Amino acid sequence: MTSPAPVSVSIDPVELAQALIRRPSVTPADEGAMDVLQRQLEGLGFDCRRMKFGEIENLYAKRGTARPNLCFAGHTDVVPVGDDAAWTAGPFEAQIKDGVLYGRGAVDMKSAIAAFVSAVAHTEEVPGSISFLITGDEEGVAEDGTVKVVEALAAEGEVIDHCIVGEPTSASLLGDMVKIGRRGSINAWIAVDGRQGHVAYPHRAANPIPVMIDILSRLQSRVLDEGYTGFQPSNLEITTVDVGNPATNVIPASAKARINIRFNPAHKGKDLAAWIEHECREAAEGFSGRVEALCKISGEAFLTEPGPFTDVIVGAVGDATGRVPELSTTGGTSDARFIRALCPVVEFGLVGSTMHQVDERVPVEEVRQLAGAYTALIRRYFEAFSG
Amino acid sequence: MTSPAPVSVSIDPVELAQALIRRPSVTPADEGAMDVLQRQLEGLGFDCRRMKFGEIENLYAKRGTARPNLCFAGHTDVVPVGDDAAWTAGPFEAQIKDGVLYGRGAVDMKSAIAAFVSAVAHTEEVPGSISFLITGDEEGVAEDGTVKVVEALAAEGEVIDHCIVGEPTSASLLGDMVKIGRRGSINAWIAVDGRQGHVAYPHRAANPIPVMIDILSRLQSRVLDEGYTGFQPSNLEITTVDVGNPATNVIPASAKARINIRFNPAHKGKDLAAWIEHECREAAEGFSGRVEALCKISGEAFLTEPGPFTDVIVGAVGDATGRVPELSTTGGTSDARFIRALCPVVEFGLVGSTMHQVDERVPVEEVRQLAGAYTALIRRYFEAFSG
Ligand SMILES: [Zn+2]
Ligand SMILES: [Zn+2]
Repeated sequence: MTSPAPVSVSIDPVELAQALIRRPSVTPADEGAMDVLQRQLEGLGFDCRRMKFGEIENLYAKRGTARPNLCFAGHTDVVPVGDDAAWTAGPFEAQIKDGVLYGRGAVDMKSAIAAFVSAVAHTEEVPGSISFLITGDEEGVAEDGTVKVVEALAAEGEVIDHCIVGEPTSASLLGDMVKIGRRGSINAWIAVDGRQGHVAYPHRAANPIPVMIDILSRLQSRVLDEGYTGFQPSNLEITTVDVGNPATNVIPASAKARINIRFNPAHKGKDLAAWIEHECREAAEGFSGRVEALCKISGEAFLTEPGPFTDVIVGAVGDATGRVPELSTTGGTSDARFIRALCPVVEFGLVGSTMHQVDERVPVEEVRQLAGAYTALIRRYFEAFSG
Repeated sequence: MTSPAPVSVSIDPVELAQALIRRPSVTPADEGAMDVLQRQLEGLGFDCRRMKFGEIENLYAKRGTARPNLCFAGHTDVVPVGDDAAWTAGPFEAQIKDGVLYGRGAVDMKSAIAAFVSAVAHTEEVPGSISFLITGDEEGVAEDGTVKVVEALAAEGEVIDHCIVGEPTSASLLGDMVKIGRRGSINAWIAVDGRQGHVAYPHRAANPIPVMIDILSRLQSRVLDEGYTGFQPSNLEITTVDVGNPATNVIPASAKARINIRFNPAHKGKDLAAWIEHECREAAEGFSGRVEALCKISGEAFLTEPGPFTDVIVGAVGDATGRVPELSTTGGTSDARFIRALCPVVEFGLVGSTMHQVDERVPVEEVRQLAGAYTALIRRYFEAFSG
């Protein structure tokens, strides 16, 4: 299958963003959002592969076969609207008021997808390939989305050389920040089971709380590290402790707690899990009850070292905005953690301040600026990496 | 008002216990239980004073005016029946099956009241006075019961020389244990308020849990004492810790915990409260949130030193059962803590193993034995303390 050589056409990123926002694709629903995108990409000569895992729509689209392959990754799903009535304009109406586009997904991240499509439309033939890796499961459990697509692509030997993720990384002005890495994240659920009894007869009971306090003291007293090149120090938070005993004269039977660690590349998730389990065992010594820790690694820490690829992004941001972005590793996790298994990843998108909130919105001028930055990015990328 | 000099009459303690059990006097209800008792005591020549505080019926009844005044203290109220359908016989039917009396209050403590009434009926004139201090609010909040009666009697200069409380103190055989003191009890409610936030941005939040863990670590690590003459070591139990945060990625705004301390006479409640508040302040140092501790002393520790009064009880138990009771200070609190302000108190009653449970029950033979022990107690008391 050969597509005609691409020529520059015009796609308005704002109109495409509006078309995408009008599909109420709250995870795991798709509501035709992926079709809207696919039609645009087919019109631009992309080979489109839909990859459905579970109930989730995913799309891998590619134009060209030569290397390098520059991939744009993102998601068409959005978080729920929250208090519908509190919105200035309907969350799926995509209204523009005073030059500002309102709607769920306006910054996270339908407008960024639209901006990259517009940038590609603006781009003639490149010495390599351009691809899109788009999922419908980023805001949900993220189990049938990017992680599965990445696995499938790796299994069939598909090569992606570099990836740009369109998450809203800008802090207060478009282009003031891009993300070159993310901390890892691990959650641990800790349960201590003892034996209920009366406070006046403690020898007949086994209070689980002192053991839990001991475990949590051990965990919170460790300084995980002092930071790592480009990263903040790793951080542990105890997010809940619960017993739920209403009676003042009763020793409870069980206690539960949960912790979360955001960690830099000084740690691996499995080492942290082993440490948590070790401290639980130590604290349980001499205790007649039972202690359990269940650890779940949401993602490992990763870093795309500053170098030629980050230079491309920095240059493109400068071209479009005149700003020099901070290369940051702060914030939560994103699907970049899965793509990092394939290739270097940098994240760059709109200002995230209204994401996930009522009245999520973006000035339409910033959507066009982002499209301009992505256009410069594509040009600079193939200048730097082809041949 | 002069009553005729008492003569020995016969009151069957089992029948009186049944009459009392048939009044479903679940705190704060009385349902005529106090009337049943009062009629019996009037028939025995007692001056009866009803003292109503709030909705609670209380009774102070006395026969004679001379000293010493030996008082029997107890309560007519009972705890709820629990699972009504699980009872072998209706909890307020007072049925006797195979020589065992079933019913709520059978051991705690309507049968003991009946036994003491029967003992008094069996007793001719004594060189002193006999009194009953009976409340309908021992099992509830205990705010309008014995504590108020004791205050009122003290205010009017009424003298009680010694008191026997009819709580079920026997451990497994009637008379194997009496209580000569009780530990004190204090509850503390601790609240830590911080600032909610996202785990990825901990510097924007103030997690209350580490402060709470620090407070609880400090509290649980102190050895309060190694014991006190006649007492177990004081004991602190953390009875609950609660945050209730369902979200793995959220730092919660507040944490609550509650502790209970059972303490021997090495401590005063107010000193323990001051210590708890001190540790809270120390743990809160440098914390931007707020820490509060609310302490409530349920009762101070007290001890009736072994001596002539405990000898009376030990002798009476021996007369009726052939056993030598252990002089104990174990277990929960009782109204004895209030009476201790007036005079030395010893507690002696039935075997408590079924108290507060479904199928609360007592062999009728043990009720009669207890009446015999109380009869001996009255005799021995006036032999030892009159003149
Ligand atoms: Zn997103
Ligand atoms: Zn009782």
